[in-house]
Amino acid sequence: MDQEKPKVRLFVDQPLDEEQAVSLSREQAHYLFGVMRLGPGANVALFNGRDGEWRAEVAEAGKRGGVLVCRARSAPQGEPPDLWLMFAPVKKARTDFIVEKAVEMGVRRVLPVHTDFTNAERWRQDRQEAHAIEAAEQCGGTFVPEICAMAKFDRVLADWDPSRRILFCDESAVGARVSLDGLEPGPWAVLVGPEGGFSDSERARLRGMDCARAISLGPRILRAETAAVAALTLWQVAAGDWR
Amino acid sequence: MDQEKPKVRLFVDQPLDEEQAVSLSREQAHYLFGVMRLGPGANVALFNGRDGEWRAEVAEAGKRGGVLVCRARSAPQGEPPDLWLMFAPVKKARTDFIVEKAVEMGVRRVLPVHTDFTNAERWRQDRQEAHAIEAAEQCGGTFVPEICAMAKFDRVLADWDPSRRILFCDESAVGARVSLDGLEPGPWAVLVGPEGGFSDSERARLRGMDCARAISLGPRILRAETAAVAALTLWQVAAGDWR
Repeated sequence: MDQEKPKVRLFVDQPLDEEQAVSLSREQAHYLFGVMRLGPGANVALFNGRDGEWRAEVAEAGKRGGVLVCRARSAPQGEPPDLWLMFAPVKKARTDFIVEKAVEMGVRRVLPVHTDFTNAERWRQDRQEAHAIEAAEQCGGTFVPEICAMAKFDRVLADWDPSRRILFCDESAVGARVSLDGLEPGPWAVLVGPEGGFSDSERARLRGMDCARAISLGPRILRAETAAVAALTLWQVAAGDWR
Repeated sequence: MDQEKPKVRLFVDQPLDEEQAVSLSREQAHYLFGVMRLGPGANVALFNGRDGEWRAEVAEAGKRGGVLVCRARSAPQGEPPDLWLMFAPVKKARTDFIVEKAVEMGVRRVLPVHTDFTNAERWRQDRQEAHAIEAAEQCGGTFVPEICAMAKFDRVLADWDPSRRILFCDESAVGARVSLDGLEPGPWAVLVGPEGGFSDSERARLRGMDCARAISLGPRILRAETAAVAALTLWQVAAGDWR
């Protein structure tokens, strides 16, 4: 077996286990054998979001498909903490960016919400699922967060399970001291509003929820994607797997 | 005077003071009067990186220029802490992103460095200066960081003033506990390596510098721009103006 470090990391929606054969889709075969020019015997890193990362070897390489065989587990399954990212989609490139960052920063679920001031292009759930998989392939992760359909923010709050706490980035708190007090392990959702912030009634509603906690993100106004990374960083270091 | 909130924030490299007249460049006049369709009497927010933000009124609007007059200071000058961001440029869109985030997160100087594993396209200093100004216009900041020319990383370290501490994001520390210990106010530089990380000799050299401190950024590998925002967040909350 070629022990060279795999040049390619691939997500496959199939079981992975010792000597398990994995068949490739046409697109995956094209990428591995056409674009990356791998041939039989080459090493590929595989993950499926459940069984860790496996070093697999190309057994058959064809134009329309191929077969890999798992040789050994190269990394254990890494589950992120029980954290969701809830955000109001913004412009396309920045929304893509937020999904990518959610994968890198380690969240379990990405939940786009339509708030009063959301002024977004369409949310393509299937496209964002593919985007999350690509981000996990690139960042070496073994977990792909669940990508939800867009939901109305007021409905989401109406149905909220109060055992999951909400950390909401409050633009009206710009300049307040940033405090990590009260960020304790457990189920949480980080909530980032749209570029225009939350409406007064949304803010009042959040402030009325016992499970919600506002956080300031310093004296400057941050764009949505920056606020997402900053808030996820603070949560991870205080309550997540960065501790 | 029209007291409506200005729709436009503009950086001008001219003094700002009460009743001060400010003349516009051709491009600025085109933007204000052609694109944004402002006319005489309209309000514009101006800043120059030194004198805070001013509410100014359009006094003359022409195709090739125009004059604004400062009416009142609308925000004090906000200086970020004495923090630099040092990073190895990556692909164009992500490099642009890092510069934008440096402005939002509040750094005084952006210093691109060419490390052993830097695999970057050209660094256009003038383009990035314009990009930093645009980011400050958008994020409501009154400060524009100094954008430096690209420098060789080993030269930068050879000439390093040890009174400025270095917080370097160490990929080899992935998975180590993230600690904010020792992040104390004072002059600092956050250092983010290229996608391939630092070379062994660079890492050894950094570890040998008393003023340098490594930091882990959790169990997942972060892209350069994510690492930049995360490290700046941790520094700001521990030692900067987010405290």
